[in-house]
Order: sequence, then C-alpha cells, then structure tokens
Amino acid sequence: MKRLLVIGGARSGKSRYAEERLEALPGRLGYIATAQAHDAEMAARIDLHRGRRGERWETCEAPCDLAEAIARMAGRCDALLVDCLTLWLSNLMLGAHSLVEGREGLIEAVAACPVPIALIGNEVGLGIVPDNALARQFRDEAGLLNQAVAKVVEEVVMVAAGLPLSFKSV
Amino acid sequence: MKRLLVIGGARSGKSRYAEERLEALPGRLGYIATAQAHDAEMAARIDLHRGRRGERWETCEAPCDLAEAIARMAGRCDALLVDCLTLWLSNLMLGAHSLVEGREGLIEAVAACPVPIALIGNEVGLGIVPDNALARQFRDEAGLLNQAVAKVVEEVVMVAAGLPLSFKSV
Amino acid sequence: MKRLLVIGGARSGKSRYAEERLEALPGRLGYIATAQAHDAEMAARIDLHRGRRGERWETCEAPCDLAEAIARMAGRCDALLVDCLTLWLSNLMLGAHSLVEGREGLIEAVAACPVPIALIGNEVGLGIVPDNALARQFRDEAGLLNQAVAKVVEEVVMVAAGLPLSFKSV
Repeated sequence: MKRLLVIGGARSGKSRYAEERLEALPGRLGYIATAQAHDAEMAARIDLHRGRRGERWETCEAPCDLAEAIARMAGRCDALLVDCLTLWLSNLMLGAHSLVEGREGLIEAVAACPVPIALIGNEVGLGIVPDNALARQFRDEAGLLNQAVAKVVEEVVMVAAGLPLSFKSV
Repeated sequence: MKRLLVIGGARSGKSRYAEERLEALPGRLGYIATAQAHDAEMAARIDLHRGRRGERWETCEAPCDLAEAIARMAGRCDALLVDCLTLWLSNLMLGAHSLVEGREGLIEAVAACPVPIALIGNEVGLGIVPDNALARQFRDEAGLLNQAVAKVVEEVVMVAAGLPLSFKSV
Repeated sequence: MKRLLVIGGARSGKSRYAEERLEALPGRLGYIATAQAHDAEMAARIDLHRGRRGERWETCEAPCDLAEAIARMAGRCDALLVDCLTLWLSNLMLGAHSLVEGREGLIEAVAACPVPIALIGNEVGLGIVPDNALARQFRDEAGLLNQAVAKVVEEVVMVAAGLPLSFKSV
C-alpha cells in the first residue's frame, strides 16, 4: 500500500476497512483525527473509533492544519490514516479558512508523504439537492476534494455495507 | 443462490432485481413485507410492488417481528424475499423496540434460514448529514444493519439504474 | 461508443468524464444543456462547464423539449452529450409537463439517435428519505428515469471521485 483513498457513505465501514489495511502493515501507526468533540454525540463517535484501535496507534488531532499534521506524523510513524477529509473540509468552512489553499496544501502533503497513507472521504452528493446554499457548497467542495485526492493516490476504494470495491488501482 | 443482500438507493430497481433472482428458483416463493400502509402514498407503493409479483408468491407482513416471520415462512416456501430491512428498522425505531435485540435476532434468523433468502436494504448514508438527530441515528443504524447482514450472507449486490454490481460473492 | 449513460452524485466528475469520452471521437460535438440560468449560482455553474469545453462543441439549450433537441442536433453533429437528465426532469415537473410522455419521447429519441450519444444522470436516491412529498416524487422519478435510459443504452458507467466504474457494457 502506498496512498489510498477510501470513500463511502455514513456508517459504511470506511474507517474499519482503512484501519485493517494499515494494521496489515508493520511498525507504528499514526491516526490523524480531524473531528472535534463539540458535543456529546460527536464525543461518543470519537470514543467508539478510538476504543477500536489498539496499542500500535498514536493519535493526533488536526481539525484544520492537516498538511502540517501529515508531515509531522510521517516523521514519527510508519503509516498514516486521516479520518476524515469531509470533517476537515467542514472545519475549514466553519472557520472561514481558504478552501483552495487548504486543498492545495493537502494534495502536496499527500503527494510528498514518505510513508503509506490512507485518507477517508465521505460521499455526500448522492441525495436530493439540499435546501440551503451552505449545504450545497459543502457537497460541491466535498466532491471536488475527493476528486483532487483521487488523482494523487494509487488506490481508490468505495466501501458499502462494510465491503470494498476498487475504483482505482495503479 | 443461498443468502443475498441487495443494497441501493430509492427507485434503483432493487426489488425487481431481487424478485427476478428468486423467480429463477423453483417452487413456492415467500414475500415478507415490512411496509405498513400508513397513508395513501405508501399504499400505492405497496400495491405497485404486489401487482408485479405473480401467482407463485405468498405474501406475509412483518413490520417488526421479522426473525419470526423468516422462520415461519421458511417452513412454507422454497425461497424468501425480505423487502425491506430499512423500513423494518424504521418500524423498530418508531415503535421504541430494542435495535440491538432486533438486529441480533434477524442475523440469527438469516444465518439459520434453511431456504435461499434475499434481503433488500436501502442505502441512506450518501447524502448531506441530516439536520435532525433522529434522522442521523436512523442512517447510522441503517448502515450498521447493512454491514451486519452483509457479513452473514454469501452474496452482496449493489443495484443502480436497475443494474447489479457485485460487492461480495463467496 | 454508441449510447452511454453516466450516473453519479453531485460533483463526482460525471460531466468531465462524459466530455472526455466524446472528445476522443472525431468530428463536431453537440452539447445539449438542460440547465436554465434562473439565478447567479446556476449561471456560475453553467459558465464553469461551458468554459471547459473547446471549439469543437456546439451548444444548444433544451430545458424541456429534449427529444426534439436530440433529433435536431444529431443532424448537425457527430456525437451528442445531454447534461443532464435530472435537471430536465426537474424542469418537466416544475412546468407541470407529463412525465410519462417526456420519458417515452426521450427513450425513443435515444434509441433512434444515429450518432453516439452520452447522457448524464444524477443519483439522488441514496440519502435519507426527504421530508417533503415533491422531493420524494422527484427522487422516485429520477430513479425510474435512470432505469429506463439504462435499458436502451449499450453502456452505463458510475462515476465517483472522478473515476468511472462500469455497470453495463454490451
């Protein structure tokens, strides 16, 4: 495994699939969490994921500075997991950060990453067009982000019902 | 065909695909409907599906007691179709039934089913995160349910635009 | 390439993929746009797509009379792109046109089209069931339309993260 993008819907088993792919690799594993525990619902979801991972994992939180976190963790770990791109995008938008700069910085960091890296991205564009403009912008940006990342990785996998399906394998 | 999970979006052709798979088998076919005709819209949808099926089908309604219905119908039919898991989940949640018990009972019934069985599950997790907490819980539970069923079946197929794509084939 | 249906979510890269498929063909290319620039957001989206296409493309707008536009443009171009079916459906519904007649007319036009034709359709049925009845009807009709078109084309491709996956190839 070199660079892997895992896409899929909510509760499709994306995180578990990516974790298993990384746990098949030797050495120290880095988990880069973009989630922030703003409320009890999100805190519970973070704890659920954290509890599933074992001793080999080192966790760092990177709600916005994702490129920096990837570069830093790549110096400490033998493989990285970014979970997830969609929450990171949401953090950028809520914090009024530049999406173009953020995306370009991320793509450079992924392309330059010296260790295997898996990135998780939600598919949010397969429902009815949302009523509000911010939600429409978000799903547009999420789709563009998945496309941009898909270009610089060797492997893209869609997960549904816990099962992987290959969209790209170089 | 032994055990088959058919996933896909609304009006993707899931039911028709599953019906055709069952109609390729010999003998008496059992249709286990989880839908309840609460309003005219749902009644029309049920009639549409029922009208498409022929004389070989025996129908039973199981809005909540799905495991029991599978066991009972398996004694009367040569193959079963459960349509669909997502409405059943919705019935459990609206009726304040235990989701964990319901899911475990279903998985046991599917694993123990002595005749071929096809189950239909909606994919509801590929749109924008819903505004209300109940909808978020529902799509989480629907995703977990599809994952759990996918583990105990030999075959998982995604249907889009009426066309099947294999995600699992043992 | 003969007849191609491209399905996928918002910003999945459907249009770009279809354009690239057509640009691999020789001759004059016809772009049949179903979008109408009702507001600035939609106008910006139309301009973005139009700017990407080159000199070989001739554009025509067909918000409702799609079958007529296909027949007419087929006499002037060597290959056609319809972008997209889902907006066209939305235009029919908003204009209170007959959906059955519209669909039947479209299917006949696609089946009779003497030059290669690609049609783009959004997948809108993979999110939570919408609250309002019109949105539910829309996603039902969009799903039925994709199914109907899928039947009369030789090739169906799903695009996600800019990557194609074949669902049908005759």
